Amino acid sequence: MKADAAADVKMNTFGTHIRFTSFGESHGPAVGGVIDGFPAGRTIGMDFVRQQVQQRQPHADFSTPRHESDQITWLSGLKFIDDTSAITLGTPIAFYISNNDVRPLDYTTTPRPGHADMTYLLKYGIQPTGGGRASARETVTRVVAGAMCEQLLQEKGIRIFAYTHAIGNIKADDNYNNLNLNTIYDNATRCPDADTDSKMLQLLTQIKAQKDSIGGIVKIIVKGMPAGVGEPIFHRLPALLAHAILTINACKGFDYGSGFEAVEKTGSELNDPILPDWQTMPLQAPHTMTNNAGGCLGGITTGNDIVCRAVFKPTPTIGGEGRHDVCVVPRAVSVVKAMTALTLADVLL
Amino acid sequence: MKADAAADVKMNTFGTHIRFTSFGESHGPAVGGVIDGFPAGRTIGMDFVRQQVQQRQPHADFSTPRHESDQITWLSGLKFIDDTSAITLGTPIAFYISNNDVRPLDYTTTPRPGHADMTYLLKYGIQPTGGGRASARETVTRVVAGAMCEQLLQEKGIRIFAYTHAIGNIKADDNYNNLNLNTIYDNATRCPDADTDSKMLQLLTQIKAQKDSIGGIVKIIVKGMPAGVGEPIFHRLPALLAHAILTINACKGFDYGSGFEAVEKTGSELNDPILPDWQTMPLQAPHTMTNNAGGCLGGITTGNDIVCRAVFKPTPTIGGEGRHDVCVVPRAVSVVKAMTALTLADVLL
Amino acid sequence: MKADAAADVKMNTFGTHIRFTSFGESHGPAVGGVIDGFPAGRTIGMDFVRQQVQQRQPHADFSTPRHESDQITWLSGLKFIDDTSAITLGTPIAFYISNNDVRPLDYTTTPRPGHADMTYLLKYGIQPTGGGRASARETVTRVVAGAMCEQLLQEKGIRIFAYTHAIGNIKADDNYNNLNLNTIYDNATRCPDADTDSKMLQLLTQIKAQKDSIGGIVKIIVKGMPAGVGEPIFHRLPALLAHAILTINACKGFDYGSGFEAVEKTGSELNDPILPDWQTMPLQAPHTMTNNAGGCLGGITTGNDIVCRAVFKPTPTIGGEGRHDVCVVPRAVSVVKAMTALTLADVLL
Amino acid sequence: MKADAAADVKMNTFGTHIRFTSFGESHGPAVGGVIDGFPAGRTIGMDFVRQQVQQRQPHADFSTPRHESDQITWLSGLKFIDDTSAITLGTPIAFYISNNDVRPLDYTTTPRPGHADMTYLLKYGIQPTGGGRASARETVTRVVAGAMCEQLLQEKGIRIFAYTHAIGNIKADDNYNNLNLNTIYDNATRCPDADTDSKMLQLLTQIKAQKDSIGGIVKIIVKGMPAGVGEPIFHRLPALLAHAILTINACKGFDYGSGFEAVEKTGSELNDPILPDWQTMPLQAPHTMTNNAGGCLGGITTGNDIVCRAVFKPTPTIGGEGRHDVCVVPRAVSVVKAMTALTLADVLL
Repeated sequence: MKADAAADVKMNTFGTHIRFTSFGESHGPAVGGVIDGFPAGRTIGMDFVRQQVQQRQPHADFSTPRHESDQITWLSGLKFIDDTSAITLGTPIAFYISNNDVRPLDYTTTPRPGHADMTYLLKYGIQPTGGGRASARETVTRVVAGAMCEQLLQEKGIRIFAYTHAIGNIKADDNYNNLNLNTIYDNATRCPDADTDSKMLQLLTQIKAQKDSIGGIVKIIVKGMPAGVGEPIFHRLPALLAHAILTINACKGFDYGSGFEAVEKTGSELNDPILPDWQTMPLQAPHTMTNNAGGCLGGITTGNDIVCRAVFKPTPTIGGEGRHDVCVVPRAVSVVKAMTALTLADVLL
Repeated sequence: MKADAAADVKMNTFGTHIRFTSFGESHGPAVGGVIDGFPAGRTIGMDFVRQQVQQRQPHADFSTPRHESDQITWLSGLKFIDDTSAITLGTPIAFYISNNDVRPLDYTTTPRPGHADMTYLLKYGIQPTGGGRASARETVTRVVAGAMCEQLLQEKGIRIFAYTHAIGNIKADDNYNNLNLNTIYDNATRCPDADTDSKMLQLLTQIKAQKDSIGGIVKIIVKGMPAGVGEPIFHRLPALLAHAILTINACKGFDYGSGFEAVEKTGSELNDPILPDWQTMPLQAPHTMTNNAGGCLGGITTGNDIVCRAVFKPTPTIGGEGRHDVCVVPRAVSVVKAMTALTLADVLL
Repeated sequence: MKADAAADVKMNTFGTHIRFTSFGESHGPAVGGVIDGFPAGRTIGMDFVRQQVQQRQPHADFSTPRHESDQITWLSGLKFIDDTSAITLGTPIAFYISNNDVRPLDYTTTPRPGHADMTYLLKYGIQPTGGGRASARETVTRVVAGAMCEQLLQEKGIRIFAYTHAIGNIKADDNYNNLNLNTIYDNATRCPDADTDSKMLQLLTQIKAQKDSIGGIVKIIVKGMPAGVGEPIFHRLPALLAHAILTINACKGFDYGSGFEAVEKTGSELNDPILPDWQTMPLQAPHTMTNNAGGCLGGITTGNDIVCRAVFKPTPTIGGEGRHDVCVVPRAVSVVKAMTALTLADVLL
Repeated sequence: MKADAAADVKMNTFGTHIRFTSFGESHGPAVGGVIDGFPAGRTIGMDFVRQQVQQRQPHADFSTPRHESDQITWLSGLKFIDDTSAITLGTPIAFYISNNDVRPLDYTTTPRPGHADMTYLLKYGIQPTGGGRASARETVTRVVAGAMCEQLLQEKGIRIFAYTHAIGNIKADDNYNNLNLNTIYDNATRCPDADTDSKMLQLLTQIKAQKDSIGGIVKIIVKGMPAGVGEPIFHRLPALLAHAILTINACKGFDYGSGFEAVEKTGSELNDPILPDWQTMPLQAPHTMTNNAGGCLGGITTGNDIVCRAVFKPTPTIGGEGRHDVCVVPRAVSVVKAMTALTLADVLL
């Protein structure tokens, strides 16, 4: 143990106006969080929060067998009307979720390849077994906070869709307008296309049989964002989104609009003509004819859909060791949506 | 003008420990910045700063014809020994660079497609001609600040390389170990391979003749980063780098390690075996046998090279309007390096 | 209810390197907090934490009759060795304390004079009964966090003393060197002088009989602070301490060193001669012969004792309404010490 | 020189929404600053800014003989209409003021008692002669930034008055309603009462003859603040104001409302009755009958005048060494007003 070389861990808080602080280790007593800056007097639907948490749970035989009921205990910031709705007091909203399916909290000595064990040990000198903070378990707290923020966005007519675009070499239609985004959670892979979902499931079965794991891509579509939102220079909206998404375990990259496809494109192909009545139209409407920009110019929204992609590496746990997902992508979509909601609520307040 | 609806612009500061605040409009009196948190008593080589600034200047006929001498005036924070070196006082280091080749500062009324004119107008109600803050002109201040930070990193044996990996469909070898990274600035395209540079130049000539523009990819390699650096959860090092790089004009995406290639890979292909003596080796050495991770696990460095990519869209200005670059990538490499240096110096302090 | 005019409440976090986020309403389910940035691998004595919490509890018949057992539930960040000690993991330390002696959480309609009810209603449109966040109940969470930080300071040989200097017109010796600071908690008023304590108790009995309340002064002495600590300009150490102390309910002012007495003093009376061997002595020693400065010059410590005062107004609740303290000062000393510990641990990390 | 032990100086920025970063050493090329977050499209009166700067200049024979013309050079963020007015662009507003009456920038070796020389040397290992950043010279930049922010407040009907309440044992009427606050700058001492001003001048003449210096008190009155402004808990408005004011050189204490007088008062004397129509009256009006609270309850404004005091120690430079003020208070009033304006504009945005 290099405990004395251990540096500080100061940064478990996300956001500026709505600030989410998360806590909890994978095999400790609980995971939880505090949401600060949430406006007062809003009615929160608790069924929606529970639904979002449930959607993130392992739900198919390619998911981890760890089972958690994910019961949320609310400690502050809310006055409950009944079991399904509560009013925000404008004060910090604190909650926790007990960890039930845990092993005794012990120290890791042999780091697993591809995991954060080694780097945590090098940084802190101490690392609990089961990944501690660097475990997918932590992300359930983000889903709770995201579900709160998403309700603020819904009030303003903003809808976030995150779905499985690719698993291995199986990909959905590149044009999301050809997909029915209301069917995302109808399919086990969270791909809103039944055929692609079937093919992905076949691939996952095969990968599982090989005791291996596989990567994939989550696509994010935000509809209804008003134009003119975002900060220029050092805190452009796409930079904030990239930051948010790359905080998710196993995420290896982010792009938006034409993204990595832009490399072989010319300016004449990508420029989006500005609509002639841009000055007089409502802010909450597309201001350009096409949307190669992915909804942002100069870091500020155009009123068009925000379109991003996030790539996830295969789970490093393979070959039968530990409890794990064959592919993290179907569960990551919930976390991607939550981080998107946290980011957008933060910049809109 | 929607001036009264104009929101605040609060976020022209980057970093936590070393904080860089930039200012200045493209056609205003000057651009400049303040670097706060820079350690006291360090000797800064001024020739290095000037060299970095010069490397960013338009330098070939595919670059903008706007000519600026980029003379830096230092206002505070330094005690100059002579023209080539200065000692830091530990106080804010302020500087500015006068804009010479300017047009009268006026208001934009007709936004250009693909630029930030429209979104700035929607946000602030006012936008100066020439792009104001949303102009490549602003990035020279980042290069100055980056050149200061890079010297802090060099003291610690850390070296940053940013180079042109691709322009359109012309790409350098994917394995950067096959390139001589000391030759980046020998070539006009900033690609450290003479053959690829020639092909890229041919493509740029052809695109210029078409009065069009083209995209590309910058690759970033950081050597000598000690293991154990970075914050977990919400401020992982790759998330901070993504944030930093996506603040650069025209950047549309970021990935690291296996990145977007990870999607079709399996866990067994990507896991990097941990070196048996990881616990006893010096922090400033690779701790894994291979480096699919791109130098970070769980957001914290492994001691291996940090390997990232940033994709840039084609310049939106085309068809002869305005002064512009046919491809921003050769000049963007300087800015990418600067933002990387700012990010790494910030997390290392 | 002006709920829609309700602004955000974003700032329940204190500190930069060690960041304490507090939550909980006076009559909600619980109060609690998250301590982020606490170094890994430190052994925390839990008896010390419990002792600090106990010292803040109502303990005499001039204190509120509300009774809380103040049992702490730890949710994360610690690996317990046994009931009396735990090792920090370097991760966020979350805890809560259930509220037991509560009334049903309802909305306030008639604001009480001298309390925050009216201003909270104006700001949030909603205010729970019992003061919500603006209740002394919230301060128990600060005492828990302060007790953690104080142990970090003790490791470095830094000791914080906060004591009752004055209640009404009864004052202890101005020269704290004439007091035995180890006897603070021997006396019900927290004044470390038995005679003064007796006189204060007499006054409190009399004030209580009048169904009134009375103000007082807490004095803070920090011994063992190394010289050279603090930030200049906008975050001078005395400014941070003033900020910290003035966040405590009922505090109306702060001064340090000669403080408000300085107004009638001349420079020749107040200048502290610098010790001739200041350059070679250990940092953790007084660097000036006298200490009119109160331990800070230019916002940075001199190695001499830090000496501050905080004044508290009489409790606004009088005349038999509600449960309250006749004088908040004896209980405020615990909170003042905690806020001082949080501030100093933050600047020392 | 302990240069390598030198810590970072990260904190030359004040504020959250309107963020002011200051730079410059007393005998360096210039002092200046960057104001970020200032709203776009506002017309700024430049004569007002110049007047504020002029009011801070040495103006009587008890002030330092150092003479600076304090000519402001604006670098960004403004579009000038003519010499007397400019429009804000919503981008960072950068400016500098050259230092003219300077001595060569050299290193301090013998620290002066009562000054920050020793503590800066202990912290940074390097300290320039003339106080570097820890000089009154730095405060001119705050006056410029404050004059910008004060214009935002004036637009909203908020007026800030700061004046000399006491110098040594000469004090103005405790009730500021008996003073004509529009006459502050008619008198050399900045006390808005001609008789008291005369007596103060006599005292200053006498102290100057003794080659000594003397302390004093600045009083701050803010009229027109709407009720319901401020954050609860850790960022109460009085805590922010205390923080702001205690960043000013030589300030040793801050209180508000009944302040240090509260110690001998009872609850029955200090409680301010709430006006019966508080719920329906305009926010920008007093909500309580009396104002012992000093305009804030629970950290949030009541609509009554904000009333604070700041105490300043005598200048440490005495006995003929160096150029200095016999009493800093008459010049400090400008800086106190500026810091108040920065704080209030920040919380109101």
